[in-house]
Amino acid sequence: MEEITLVNIDKLYESVAAKGNVCVGLDTAADYVPPAERRKAASDAEAVLGFNKALIDATFDAAACYKVQIAYYEEMGIAGLSVYAKTLQYIREKGGLVIADIKRGDIADTATRYAKAHFAGEFEADFVTLSPYMGMDSIEPWLQYAGAGKGAFVLMRTSNKGMRDFEYLALPDNKRVYHKVGDKLSDLATVHFGKYGYGLFGAVVGCTEREEAAEIRANYGNLFFLIPGYGAQGGAADDAALLLRDGNGGVVNASRSILKAWSAGSVDESKADNTFAAEAARKAAVEMRDAILDAVKR
Amino acid sequence: MEEITLVNIDKLYESVAAKGNVCVGLDTAADYVPPAERRKAASDAEAVLGFNKALIDATFDAAACYKVQIAYYEEMGIAGLSVYAKTLQYIREKGGLVIADIKRGDIADTATRYAKAHFAGEFEADFVTLSPYMGMDSIEPWLQYAGAGKGAFVLMRTSNKGMRDFEYLALPDNKRVYHKVGDKLSDLATVHFGKYGYGLFGAVVGCTEREEAAEIRANYGNLFFLIPGYGAQGGAADDAALLLRDGNGGVVNASRSILKAWSAGSVDESKADNTFAAEAARKAAVEMRDAILDAVKR
Repeated sequence: MEEITLVNIDKLYESVAAKGNVCVGLDTAADYVPPAERRKAASDAEAVLGFNKALIDATFDAAACYKVQIAYYEEMGIAGLSVYAKTLQYIREKGGLVIADIKRGDIADTATRYAKAHFAGEFEADFVTLSPYMGMDSIEPWLQYAGAGKGAFVLMRTSNKGMRDFEYLALPDNKRVYHKVGDKLSDLATVHFGKYGYGLFGAVVGCTEREEAAEIRANYGNLFFLIPGYGAQGGAADDAALLLRDGNGGVVNASRSILKAWSAGSVDESKADNTFAAEAARKAAVEMRDAILDAVKR
Repeated sequence: MEEITLVNIDKLYESVAAKGNVCVGLDTAADYVPPAERRKAASDAEAVLGFNKALIDATFDAAACYKVQIAYYEEMGIAGLSVYAKTLQYIREKGGLVIADIKRGDIADTATRYAKAHFAGEFEADFVTLSPYMGMDSIEPWLQYAGAGKGAFVLMRTSNKGMRDFEYLALPDNKRVYHKVGDKLSDLATVHFGKYGYGLFGAVVGCTEREEAAEIRANYGNLFFLIPGYGAQGGAADDAALLLRDGNGGVVNASRSILKAWSAGSVDESKADNTFAAEAARKAAVEMRDAILDAVKR
């Protein structure tokens, strides 16, 4: 058995310290791949894999980690899920960290099966995302892999419009539903945590109004945040910086603004290849990294 | 294109009227398969497929529908997901109805990709289960397949212990979080509904205390319920019957108590085959169907 020196949340902390806060989201649809490469590939799934590998290589020193959204691969069926597995494996074999964005939420034996599926074997990831609706007994079974250093990010306060429907409901004690999720995760983090003080299981927190972001960061000091919504979804470096602590304690995900950077501006799309796309992705990731670093200093 | 005469929730209503309320849960782990069959099979995944087919054939006239829990297949990796797809296909080709128990919950383009994955193509199911934490914009994208008659069951009030953590939180208006989910689904069902008055998208409601069950059934008259927790999880026919209306409006899921019926009692497990397992499953499904029908009459 491999000796565990650092749990994954510690590795992520160190990765952020070395490379900045960018999480590259590989939500790769086949039509994000340059047309010339897509035509050359044996299948759409193979086109996505080639594109992913090129982007991973190019962004590796500018990205703290990667997040792979399984929906984009499921859409392509079995062939797509095979490429999902290979993408995770490629990142892990390079020594990178990968979050499987699967938002699972189920209990008992089912949760245990899911945990085995995504923390061991073919689909092994370093982190997963989880949905808390059913309660903490849908989260805790994943801790069976705490000994292997595995981590998770649990949906807490997202920034989509529908967030107001349930997450944001106000309770009699003036907390909101999402605070209760944060409270439970914060409690869990007092038991399962790494050497930098962050719980093995963190939270998904979107960019919000300034006041709310500051409150969330202050109240949940032991939670590492996965922060979606940057770029294509409208979030900015200043918003994301509010959810960090001393520039760490969070990674900021961007997907389309990096994946599709190659097609921005007046490019002749028919002539683009994966090398061109990867260079554009690298430039977008570096700019995003630097924008967040600047925002943290302000 | 195939003409849609009945939406799936209507087909399910008619199936319940003809066959009773049992939903057979194919949460099939390889170690549920008789050892002799498992040894004979080329792989665990193939063993599960053979077992599933035998049980589907045997229970077909006693089951309103089937529910396939994807976690058990994901655990077996790509080969398992291929058997997951084949199981769905086998049920649908026989003219049966199948619920993909995938509990997805994501927004925007991601939700659209998921809907395409599970309502069309290799993994096509008749219904899916969804998790509402992120809000109605994680539910509504699935309605893109309403025109094809597709349906869903959204987690509302489950009966696991952790349910109290978030679903059950009381709000200032004395409703609980799960009521807000039910209210939104009930609103949606006034727009998207079938000829028997039930919304295309129903709710997952576990067996609860008698008073609460009666209140839920009364308040959400236009929601069809997927009712888990029967048998191995402790729910009884009387509890389930409270969530039905005139014996319809709900299906009651049992998984292990049907799948593992063959190994109950003093059977010589080494001599059991799939035919034996399927007969035991049929008997368990028929007994469950009759127990619920009796409870409805009481």
